[in-house]
Amino acid sequence: MTALTWTTLGTAAGPNAHGTRAQPANLLHRPGWAVLVDAGDSAVDQIARAGARLADVRAVVLSHLHIDHTGGLFALLGRRLQPRVGGPLTIYGPPGTAELVGHLTAALRYLADLGHATNPRVSPIPAVTAVEVTEGDEFDLDEIHVRAAVNTHYSFPPDSDDNARFQSLSFRFGTPGRAIVYTGDTGPSLNVAQLAQDADLLISEINDPNRVPPALRDKGPAVAEFVKQHFEREHLSPSEAGTLAARAGVRAIVLTHVGVDDADLAAARQLVASHFDGDIHFARDLDRF
Amino acid sequence: MTALTWTTLGTAAGPNAHGTRAQPANLLHRPGWAVLVDAGDSAVDQIARAGARLADVRAVVLSHLHIDHTGGLFALLGRRLQPRVGGPLTIYGPPGTAELVGHLTAALRYLADLGHATNPRVSPIPAVTAVEVTEGDEFDLDEIHVRAAVNTHYSFPPDSDDNARFQSLSFRFGTPGRAIVYTGDTGPSLNVAQLAQDADLLISEINDPNRVPPALRDKGPAVAEFVKQHFEREHLSPSEAGTLAARAGVRAIVLTHVGVDDADLAAARQLVASHFDGDIHFARDLDRF
Repeated sequence: MTALTWTTLGTAAGPNAHGTRAQPANLLHRPGWAVLVDAGDSAVDQIARAGARLADVRAVVLSHLHIDHTGGLFALLGRRLQPRVGGPLTIYGPPGTAELVGHLTAALRYLADLGHATNPRVSPIPAVTAVEVTEGDEFDLDEIHVRAAVNTHYSFPPDSDDNARFQSLSFRFGTPGRAIVYTGDTGPSLNVAQLAQDADLLISEINDPNRVPPALRDKGPAVAEFVKQHFEREHLSPSEAGTLAARAGVRAIVLTHVGVDDADLAAARQLVASHFDGDIHFARDLDRF
Repeated sequence: MTALTWTTLGTAAGPNAHGTRAQPANLLHRPGWAVLVDAGDSAVDQIARAGARLADVRAVVLSHLHIDHTGGLFALLGRRLQPRVGGPLTIYGPPGTAELVGHLTAALRYLADLGHATNPRVSPIPAVTAVEVTEGDEFDLDEIHVRAAVNTHYSFPPDSDDNARFQSLSFRFGTPGRAIVYTGDTGPSLNVAQLAQDADLLISEINDPNRVPPALRDKGPAVAEFVKQHFEREHLSPSEAGTLAARAGVRAIVLTHVGVDDADLAAARQLVASHFDGDIHFARDLDRF
């Protein structure tokens, strides 16, 4: 069995444009076969830059439905449809995924009906199936066994309607030879630590809580206070990422969704290392693990 | 009045991934104000790399609804919505544009309803207005006067239902000091030559009719024959692009949507120059004109 590679296609944090990091997306792949894990804007071009083909992608796994993790999905479906690339596709994600995929598929109807004078119509649209998953759900992607766990990225009260409707997931990918856990976006979470127990590789978000994204700098004190609360409760500081890795007992941590300025990466690494003594990698776009 | 710049954000041809060219998109802009002309996958990140801000974009102009020209639209709308970037947006395009924008907006409803425990909901969705235009229609974007003309990219028989439903447009942008004409995708077209009459700058597609995109090389003789017909009738060869520029009497031509392999660019330039004696530029991503 060929070993699977995890490639960080896009390592930016949040929907605002970053000069050198693409939007969040990852590829779990071997030659001729791939699963896209999160589908940020430009994921299709990043797949090609990673040396894989769009036709290789058999499934998409979405951690949550924030636009930085889904912005590339319309292009992915359309760039499969118009040039007739690839076969059936299954999209796994939290509640809301089926609705999202339904609207995006509807948006492609015109394109499916369109031919040229020189060209038969594209219809029918190749099968795209949405599968919604939640806490504890398990599914298989060929030789990979996947388990989902709800994390704390939205942090709604447990019994609230919002908590049922809006879920952010982490995933454990049991692959032959190693277990890989992907946090998606999360705040501190015992549930994620449990999901990641003894994994070989923890692909974790990281966020500098003292950083204010440039686009938010002139928005006033109310927004500044929201950002502070959001970063503290719904993302992982370098110390918290290190603590998660140590608590789970993983062998190595890969930091992605990097909400840390380049100038502060060395300091962030020290903070991770002060809690976790395994291997620490800060990912760049197209790094392979 | 500050002069407007035309930046080629993405210069690839067709929806298949290209290693070094982003999907078709262009920015007509001055500091703090911009119009996006076509919205290929990754347009938002390319806008940032061009030194502009997403918040600057007041309008989108779509030449036609092939996915290489629209794949970035979902991400553009969502990356404005979630971080509350920018104000009202108007999207101009051919018939079908309102339906497309309607489905993409519906796909963002979940995101608009979503807050965090720490964050008020994003709703309501900022106003996005679709305006469908066709042959001869004119509209103004601040100081720019725009005129639309139907081109031959789809080449359906004139009286057919398909010809009414599926239209591909070229646009003339009358800006203070210079007129810029954008062909979008087209085959040879007297209508486009008329639209471009005496323009300062012709932004034209170009396509090597002998080139077979890698993704289509193993699809058999029927697809090969379609591609040949499609390239001959519905795109511009280097000679045809040069002929269009000469016939219209423009001062300069910028070739984008470059369906020419890098190794063949010099030969293509010679072919353009054999018909047109003005300035000839083969665009790369993020070139400014």
